[in-house]
Amino acid sequence: MSQLTPVATTWVNGQVADNLPVTDRGLAYGDGLFETLRASHGSLPLLSLHLERLQRGCSALRIPFQGERIEAELNMAASVVGDGVVKLVLTRGSGQRGYAMPVDAVPTRILAISPLPVYPADRRDGIRLYSCATRLSDQPLLAGIKHLNRLDQVLARSEWQDPAFAEGLVCDQQGQVIECTMSNLFARVDGQWVTPDLGRCGVQGVMREYLLARLVERGEPAAVSRLGLGALHEADQVLCCNSLIGVWPVVRLGDRVWQVGDETRLLQSLAEQVYQ
Amino acid sequence: MSQLTPVATTWVNGQVADNLPVTDRGLAYGDGLFETLRASHGSLPLLSLHLERLQRGCSALRIPFQGERIEAELNMAASVVGDGVVKLVLTRGSGQRGYAMPVDAVPTRILAISPLPVYPADRRDGIRLYSCATRLSDQPLLAGIKHLNRLDQVLARSEWQDPAFAEGLVCDQQGQVIECTMSNLFARVDGQWVTPDLGRCGVQGVMREYLLARLVERGEPAAVSRLGLGALHEADQVLCCNSLIGVWPVVRLGDRVWQVGDETRLLQSLAEQVYQ
Repeated sequence: MSQLTPVATTWVNGQVADNLPVTDRGLAYGDGLFETLRASHGSLPLLSLHLERLQRGCSALRIPFQGERIEAELNMAASVVGDGVVKLVLTRGSGQRGYAMPVDAVPTRILAISPLPVYPADRRDGIRLYSCATRLSDQPLLAGIKHLNRLDQVLARSEWQDPAFAEGLVCDQQGQVIECTMSNLFARVDGQWVTPDLGRCGVQGVMREYLLARLVERGEPAAVSRLGLGALHEADQVLCCNSLIGVWPVVRLGDRVWQVGDETRLLQSLAEQVYQ
Repeated sequence: MSQLTPVATTWVNGQVADNLPVTDRGLAYGDGLFETLRASHGSLPLLSLHLERLQRGCSALRIPFQGERIEAELNMAASVVGDGVVKLVLTRGSGQRGYAMPVDAVPTRILAISPLPVYPADRRDGIRLYSCATRLSDQPLLAGIKHLNRLDQVLARSEWQDPAFAEGLVCDQQGQVIECTMSNLFARVDGQWVTPDLGRCGVQGVMREYLLARLVERGEPAAVSRLGLGALHEADQVLCCNSLIGVWPVVRLGDRVWQVGDETRLLQSLAEQVYQ
């Protein structure tokens, strides 16, 4: 870790580097995982949730989870960037051609720091969702984890260029609402928050996890369940969340217009407190 | 292309190189495609089928298809390896963090040569299939093309280590037979070859395409249709094919034992003629 210096923005296996071997299975097969963390004042407030998800991903893909080493490198990167973004890509490592997991593979850790993305300030007061035609792959073995097979998201995000749309809504193969291209979704239905079940597709975002836990603490547990497009349209409030953006209220999808309600502002406030 | 020398085994964008930038979207999201070609006597007999599939993949992912440049590099690599394997990875290129396709992305071409894989000679006379529990992702937008999101195959191939099984059978989310982990499947049902429809998952292998065309020429077109496990068990003959292995007759799956029939030997012969 002594190689981590303030001038570097990328490291590979703890060494300052900006490239990796073409034999890496992260490239060959998307055989790996990633985490994108928001650093605040040099620390990573939601680190434990990120590490838990990474560990679940490692378990699903049978990649050794070197938790202590990864945690140390993430914290070091956060101290370098201060307020910004720390991204970790963890691959199975290099291997010969062929799908079989190499018995002697050594996982590759790729760490990158970057400034916080700059979004229009008014997104805090409401965004418009694009309705993506791309539907998510149905695959329970990969659902929830943040693996490197992200063509679903690449295709969905490519459907619109108009900056009037801050995010895109994506459904599963049956047309049920799942999430947005880079964030999770909560809808207020009959006086209760509902967030889609991610058992067959979708990413279990750490901000989603964080907000779910806060709602439990407040005695207002959210329902994690199926959510149809009809139910979404009938919802009183809708929001998107992830660990970089916090909470963006949704104020429009197609012809449906929503107001930003008190319950949305409460979750937004809880999200913002994380990074204060 | 002047950098292609006999000592090199990998090239990146036509230059001898064994690494690539960590910002490549092939690594970040599996945002790219690949082709694995068998070179014979310095040429690539099924090149046109590989290029057609690559072009279909580029179209699906909206990656610019630089056909002439790619064809020239593949042929050069084949001339270097002689008899062996030429693998091309084509990614969208480097980009900033985020799923949106960069407007100025320049695709990355990664070329690698390697010796022909050495398989036990008796596989030509029949192999045993492992029955994989892993089911393929249901995603019509990505079905058929050879993209870099290959965790389905990595998980399926990891289910067995016993070399008694040469390949593994994989089904779709509904339990219909689709293919094997690295090859396509044909089954002889009621006197006709059947190969599974790949409209929602699976890879359209070039050897499958080649054999389908030969069967049409012979006036014995194969059916491309749904194939249940029950129908597979009732089939008279079963085979696996890809462009590296040619045709491997399947002689066992679970308790089901098959003989190697004349119709299988004919397709095997057609496959072997490609590389003579």
